[in-house]
Parts: sequence; C-alpha cells; structure tokens
Amino acid sequence: MEFSLDKSLEIIANTPVVISTLLHNLSDDWTDRNEGENTWTVKEVVAHLIECEQTNWLPRIRIVLNSPETVFAPMDMQAHMEQAKNHSLGELLVQFDQLRANAIRELKQYDLKEEDFLKTATHPVIGKVSLVNLISTWTAHDMTHLAQIARIIARQNKELVGNFKQYLNILN
Amino acid sequence: MEFSLDKSLEIIANTPVVISTLLHNLSDDWTDRNEGENTWTVKEVVAHLIECEQTNWLPRIRIVLNSPETVFAPMDMQAHMEQAKNHSLGELLVQFDQLRANAIRELKQYDLKEEDFLKTATHPVIGKVSLVNLISTWTAHDMTHLAQIARIIARQNKELVGNFKQYLNILN
Repeated sequence: MEFSLDKSLEIIANTPVVISTLLHNLSDDWTDRNEGENTWTVKEVVAHLIECEQTNWLPRIRIVLNSPETVFAPMDMQAHMEQAKNHSLGELLVQFDQLRANAIRELKQYDLKEEDFLKTATHPVIGKVSLVNLISTWTAHDMTHLAQIARIIARQNKELVGNFKQYLNILN
Repeated sequence: MEFSLDKSLEIIANTPVVISTLLHNLSDDWTDRNEGENTWTVKEVVAHLIECEQTNWLPRIRIVLNSPETVFAPMDMQAHMEQAKNHSLGELLVQFDQLRANAIRELKQYDLKEEDFLKTATHPVIGKVSLVNLISTWTAHDMTHLAQIARIIARQNKELVGNFKQYLNILN
C-alpha cells in the first residue's frame, strides 16, 4: 500500500486499547509465563513496548525532523526486563497507553507535509532510514508484538490440545 | 498449564471484543488485502471464525456430551469465502460477537464437572479427542487467528519499512 500517516495512525493510536482489551482480565498463568528459555512473557512484551515509546519511536522522529546528523541510539533489548519486574501488568498497560497517547499528540502537532516524510536520519546498524520507514515500522512493530502476545498465550495450551496440535502451527 | 474452563473462558469470551477493537476503525487497505496468492484477508479470517462458531466448536462440544458415537463433520476451509463476499466487515464482527456470546451462554448452562472434561468423541482425521482438547484448541485457535490478523496487517507495510525489514521477522 501507499504510505499514509492517517492509515498508520489507525493502527498506532489503537494498539494500547487493543492490547489492554486482550490482557486486562487474564490470569497470571497467561501473562507471566514465557515460551521457554530466552523468551519473553506477555508482561515483558508490554514492558518492551513501553521502552520503545521512551527511547525509540518519537525520540527518533524528533531526530529526523530536528537533528538528522545525530545517529540514533541503539535499542536496549534488555532494559524492559526491570520494568516488567517492578510493575504490575495493569500499571504497565496504563503507562503504555499514556506514553502512546502523548506520542500521537506530539506527532499530530508537527502537522507533517508530504516532503517531511522523505526526510532521513541514520540508524547505527542499518544506515539511512526515512520518516516513512520509521512510522511504517512503528505500525508493523505493534502488529509483530500483538502476534507475539497471541502466540505466547496459545502456547500455554500446547500440552492440552492433544491431536489437534497438527492443525495449530502457532504451537510448533 | 493445567486445564481450567474459567481460564479458557477468559480468552474465548473476550476474543470478539479484542478483534472488534483491533478492526472496527480500519481502512479497507488493512482489512481487504491478503498476503498473496492462496492467503486470506483480515475480513476472510473473521468470516472463518464465524464458520467455526457455526459448525465446529459448540456443535462438537454437543457431540462429546450427548452423542459421542457421532464422528465430527470435517471443517470446510472454504465456506467462509462466501460469507466474506456477502457481508461487510462490520456485519461479520457483530455476527461473530453474537454467535460467540450464545456459545458461551450455552456452555456455561451445561455446568460441566471435572469428569465431563475427560469425555471424548472422534474427529474424522485425528481420532479421539477429549473436551479438554477441544476447549483448549478453541482458545489456541482464537489466538492463532489473532496472530494471523496482526501479521496480515503488518505485511501491508512490507515495502514501506525500508532497511528495518531485517528486524521484523513477521514480514518475511
């Protein structure tokens, strides 16, 4: 599809309520278990989404718009583990919702024009990226982690589905 | 985890509102495009969930409880395509919500005891399955298709994420 900020925002602005709706009433059995060694729990995924709000999406958009000579700081893929340990899932969901709402508000205030979306800055590993790339990745990244959460939940039932396992690729 | 009807229902009863929250405000670009040949659109996935309510979950639970000698009818994996063609996504979401709510109501009315969950019937391909298997599969199947919907949406951005593609396994 063609890039559209409005269509990107249909997803990005909606993700916190989608994830809260999915998780708000779940037992710890669904949210505090991972998929095995070196994998994340549902709660840790939410903490990672918070970390991305704090250090990735809007901070990088600000760099593209205001100081494109600044190389992005690399993402810390472990930082969220502390957040997950020190807060309840309910607290994390509220924090994610607030951070995302603030980010959308600031993004809209920029009143971006077509030429702004072509502006670029430099990622420390993958090089030059545009605002189109960054905002489209934000959208896809939300969906990646929604899919991951659904998979983690599904896999808690791996031993309970019996012979149906062969029809459920998500479990394997 | 141990099987628990209550914990299964935390997921199953919640899925229609999760999917409606995810999809209710999306442009057709997100919901009416598939992932390529022989793949489904988001709308077709919702139609498949409806088909499963109508011919799979509760009908099979009734067989296990009332006529376990009856072999399950096989799922028709194409039947939903007509549903998707003939209805708007909004209509499909309402229908899914109503069918699921009715199914949960009927399931709760059975007031199932521990021994009921061990009852079995026969699937035409995979053989003997228990009520634990069936209800646990219902839960995992919901999450499978939630993950699929998230993936279909993410992949609409495949050409827009630029060099970030290497970080987004969901696109590949």
